[in-house]
Amino acid sequence: MTLTVYLSGEIHTDWRDQIIDGAKGLDVQFNSPVTDHAASDDCGVKILGAEDQKYWHDHKGAMVNAIRTRKGITDADVVVVRFGEKYKQWNAAFDAGYAAALGKSLIILHGPDHQHALKEVDAAALAVAEHPAQVVDILRYVLMGKLPG
Amino acid sequence: MTLTVYLSGEIHTDWRDQIIDGAKGLDVQFNSPVTDHAASDDCGVKILGAEDQKYWHDHKGAMVNAIRTRKGITDADVVVVRFGEKYKQWNAAFDAGYAAALGKSLIILHGPDHQHALKEVDAAALAVAEHPAQVVDILRYVLMGKLPG
Amino acid sequence: MTLTVYLSGEIHTDWRDQIIDGAKGLDVQFNSPVTDHAASDDCGVKILGAEDQKYWHDHKGAMVNAIRTRKGITDADVVVVRFGEKYKQWNAAFDAGYAAALGKSLIILHGPDHQHALKEVDAAALAVAEHPAQVVDILRYVLMGKLPG
Amino acid sequence: MTLTVYLSGEIHTDWRDQIIDGAKGLDVQFNSPVTDHAASDDCGVKILGAEDQKYWHDHKGAMVNAIRTRKGITDADVVVVRFGEKYKQWNAAFDAGYAAALGKSLIILHGPDHQHALKEVDAAALAVAEHPAQVVDILRYVLMGKLPG
Amino acid sequence: MTLTVYLSGEIHTDWRDQIIDGAKGLDVQFNSPVTDHAASDDCGVKILGAEDQKYWHDHKGAMVNAIRTRKGITDADVVVVRFGEKYKQWNAAFDAGYAAALGKSLIILHGPDHQHALKEVDAAALAVAEHPAQVVDILRYVLMGKLPG
Amino acid sequence: MTLTVYLSGEIHTDWRDQIIDGAKGLDVQFNSPVTDHAASDDCGVKILGAEDQKYWHDHKGAMVNAIRTRKGITDADVVVVRFGEKYKQWNAAFDAGYAAALGKSLIILHGPDHQHALKEVDAAALAVAEHPAQVVDILRYVLMGKLPG
Amino acid sequence: MTLTVYLSGEIHTDWRDQIIDGAKGLDVQFNSPVTDHAASDDCGVKILGAEDQKYWHDHKGAMVNAIRTRKGITDADVVVVRFGEKYKQWNAAFDAGYAAALGKSLIILHGPDHQHALKEVDAAALAVAEHPAQVVDILRYVLMGKLPG
Amino acid sequence: MTLTVYLSGEIHTDWRDQIIDGAKGLDVQFNSPVTDHAASDDCGVKILGAEDQKYWHDHKGAMVNAIRTRKGITDADVVVVRFGEKYKQWNAAFDAGYAAALGKSLIILHGPDHQHALKEVDAAALAVAEHPAQVVDILRYVLMGKLPG
Repeated sequence: MTLTVYLSGEIHTDWRDQIIDGAKGLDVQFNSPVTDHAASDDCGVKILGAEDQKYWHDHKGAMVNAIRTRKGITDADVVVVRFGEKYKQWNAAFDAGYAAALGKSLIILHGPDHQHALKEVDAAALAVAEHPAQVVDILRYVLMGKLPG
Repeated sequence: MTLTVYLSGEIHTDWRDQIIDGAKGLDVQFNSPVTDHAASDDCGVKILGAEDQKYWHDHKGAMVNAIRTRKGITDADVVVVRFGEKYKQWNAAFDAGYAAALGKSLIILHGPDHQHALKEVDAAALAVAEHPAQVVDILRYVLMGKLPG
Repeated sequence: MTLTVYLSGEIHTDWRDQIIDGAKGLDVQFNSPVTDHAASDDCGVKILGAEDQKYWHDHKGAMVNAIRTRKGITDADVVVVRFGEKYKQWNAAFDAGYAAALGKSLIILHGPDHQHALKEVDAAALAVAEHPAQVVDILRYVLMGKLPG
Repeated sequence: MTLTVYLSGEIHTDWRDQIIDGAKGLDVQFNSPVTDHAASDDCGVKILGAEDQKYWHDHKGAMVNAIRTRKGITDADVVVVRFGEKYKQWNAAFDAGYAAALGKSLIILHGPDHQHALKEVDAAALAVAEHPAQVVDILRYVLMGKLPG
Repeated sequence: MTLTVYLSGEIHTDWRDQIIDGAKGLDVQFNSPVTDHAASDDCGVKILGAEDQKYWHDHKGAMVNAIRTRKGITDADVVVVRFGEKYKQWNAAFDAGYAAALGKSLIILHGPDHQHALKEVDAAALAVAEHPAQVVDILRYVLMGKLPG
Repeated sequence: MTLTVYLSGEIHTDWRDQIIDGAKGLDVQFNSPVTDHAASDDCGVKILGAEDQKYWHDHKGAMVNAIRTRKGITDADVVVVRFGEKYKQWNAAFDAGYAAALGKSLIILHGPDHQHALKEVDAAALAVAEHPAQVVDILRYVLMGKLPG
Repeated sequence: MTLTVYLSGEIHTDWRDQIIDGAKGLDVQFNSPVTDHAASDDCGVKILGAEDQKYWHDHKGAMVNAIRTRKGITDADVVVVRFGEKYKQWNAAFDAGYAAALGKSLIILHGPDHQHALKEVDAAALAVAEHPAQVVDILRYVLMGKLPG
Repeated sequence: MTLTVYLSGEIHTDWRDQIIDGAKGLDVQFNSPVTDHAASDDCGVKILGAEDQKYWHDHKGAMVNAIRTRKGITDADVVVVRFGEKYKQWNAAFDAGYAAALGKSLIILHGPDHQHALKEVDAAALAVAEHPAQVVDILRYVLMGKLPG
């Protein structure tokens, strides 16, 4: 059994690397959005031409990024969505909803402060974790049947 | 042609009433989440029994509310999602993602301040509006072919 | 909003009547399997001809009953599955799995003794209740936003 | 032609090993749930944190196990579900219903005592067998066209 | 519960009338193909223009008839397919396969002579009957829970 | 049997009226795009705000019109697409492809000059007609089994 | 591009070998039903136990064969169905209907005598051929763009 | 991540080669229709027999080509559709509609003259480009996160 896992959400800490490193040796294929913030914001206009209006500048970029996001979520068995401490992160919640509607197994990763605000998102998940290492433990258990410790 | 419309998101202003009032006489069937904040938070424990942990208190409520939300989105032709000025509103973005994955026609309603933060959500929409009256105008145009003014 | 609800499972107590009576005045359409045990067991051979082997006697009946069960689950927004005190009730768990795979909102109804044995079934549900009156409370809340008491 | 087969149900005898051993040399990819009973019961709390209530302890584990079960059933061409002599085994019947709704080819494996109680489950199956060796015979026939003996 | 039933297959006896008459008073909506043989054969060229080649004459008619057949099968809860004594009746078997792939409940109606030749078709059915009255008995049982006699 | 029919394509002649008039008395529900050319072009900016760039002006309008088009095609049993003598009419061919992928019954309406250019579109259709009256004849035949003349 | 092709229907001539031989060197993966007539008829009872009634003998075999047929059709890009000179061959027409409902590309292979009787089946196909060599020509053209001669 | 890309539309310039060459080294699998115009027009009659009527000549060819087109679009993650300067190109718009209904990521490629005529097609796309090199830039960005320049 190979698990394909999409790592969605917060891009300002190294949580993806922690999961990918921790999962070394497991039969997992990881995908992620582009996490270079500037490239992600500007990809639309850099490739398809400048826009006067900020709205269309953003729109073009969001559409190009959607090619990657859709592919990543559609191919995934498991979608991990991390909510960080800051920002609105509506794209993370959007991805969680999109994945839920497709019947993907959701793992939500967030600190205790967001518990109440994320209750609808958590309610759609099969696991809610605080630390990237717990996601690794889940992947190892799902693939190998082995618990930590 | 009858349009079934689900009104998701912000529950602290009267935007739903404005749309429903404005659409009087149009062949539209509206559905919404429960907008009584206290009832929505406590429905799980009030009906199914108290919980010691706040997390499970919230969880039980979110699950019961999901019965209504899923039905509302699944039955809808059009899903309108409004993002207000305050709060994280992750459930609104989750609903938008859920609706997008099901191929529903999305209308997103928000002020200009949220433009950049909502760019991925807006990119999945067929219309992005600022005022409830614009949603009414869209519904009238879609059903009757008549433009405002 | 009209809810279509399928009442699956245990057929030896009056739990269905309690729910249907309690939900009077709510916009709910209920469906159920045939709850006449003898008719349900013999419908295949009574209509399509006797069988020497008990296995095929049972099989023919189960197939005819499946016409009603499939229709009931496929049309439902909400599937309530009750597990009673006695018997294996594998058809109840089968219906729960079938409904879950179709994305129906599941409500599971059972006493505290079955908690551990039903943990996988409960984990697929949006609500787990002990008493039929709680199911009525959920339906009223989902449709009207009103909590009991 | 490669067959992907998910082996669901009873975990107290070596029936999975019998099938996997018997199918050596056939182009079959087998998947199963975690069959370490203690690990399966405790995976949720061991990874995601302890719970005071047994119900939530069980719930967290069932949810984590569902990641593996869903993946196994979704990927399968054939789902074999075995019902043993003891216990309620509602998760086995739930898996059978889930697989049936997805249109998977079902093989049910049980002794003659369960014939009446499993009639609805058997009615959804393409084969009902008593012995693991018969499942191997079916897999060999389906892949190679060769009958036993 | 309303059942929508499509009556496919043999058009030379009055079996459809027997079922429709027998089901009077039941909540059933029946649909059928056009059973006027000449009209069915010539509808394509009569409406869309003559063809020199018999193959295209037949083709145009089969395509126009497919508009009705697809609608009838797609809308149906139950598809009844009758195989008569004569002719190849490949369209009947085609409809049965089409309905099976869509997950419709199939009832096959044929005399004992065709038992071996129809074994694959029968194996996809929930009921195999010899007489139209048995189909009525099934519909009454499915809707009302009442057995004949 | 009620047929829901979407009339897509050319908006400069009265072909829709001819079909709707001709089908009076038949159990057909017709839907169409907005056929007021100016309103259709400007609906986006009139409702949602002006754009400097013609591209975004067009884009906003096309998105709003898509709410109606998607609803019309999704609800339809039969999609009729007419190609007129002039213009590129790429939206007509787009609608035909969209409808074909959803498994709708397609009727294509065009003059003999377009035969070669439309061969891929015609190949996805169940009927190819030249005159609106032929579409009426098809609808009458499909619903009533009656041929013209 | 690799094409997966399922070869359904007549089992008394070597048409499958002709196609498989002719397609040597093309990127095609072929699947077929079990074509050993005796094994196919008896597989159910040989593996799962004898039956007194011929009907159930046939039924058990048809069900086991369905595991292979479903897998073959579900995995296929192209389904070729051949109708021979003799026998009812209802399973061939059933497979054609099943494949059509799943949106598979159908190629039907039969002699000119069956033209009228197969008109509904042919109408669902993308190609109707008389000789196995034509199927090879189609596969070569689809994969390589090369025409015969 | 491997992207499967279908290149649909205009066949008179070398835009496909430009994209395929430009994407060397990227993990992309390209598919296309047969771009040999004469072979594409005549494939039906060359393989399946001549037709007197040009309509059926065209029809047979379009059907055989559809085997390749359907496979190409169904397998694709991304569908690129190019509209050239000349001809009606209705098959290109049909492919775009077909791909959109299947939820594929669409990239539309056309010059500025077609902007208004293609507004409905562009509105269904995630990117609208003028030059093949921009498509390569998108593929590189989607796969590698790297922007040009």
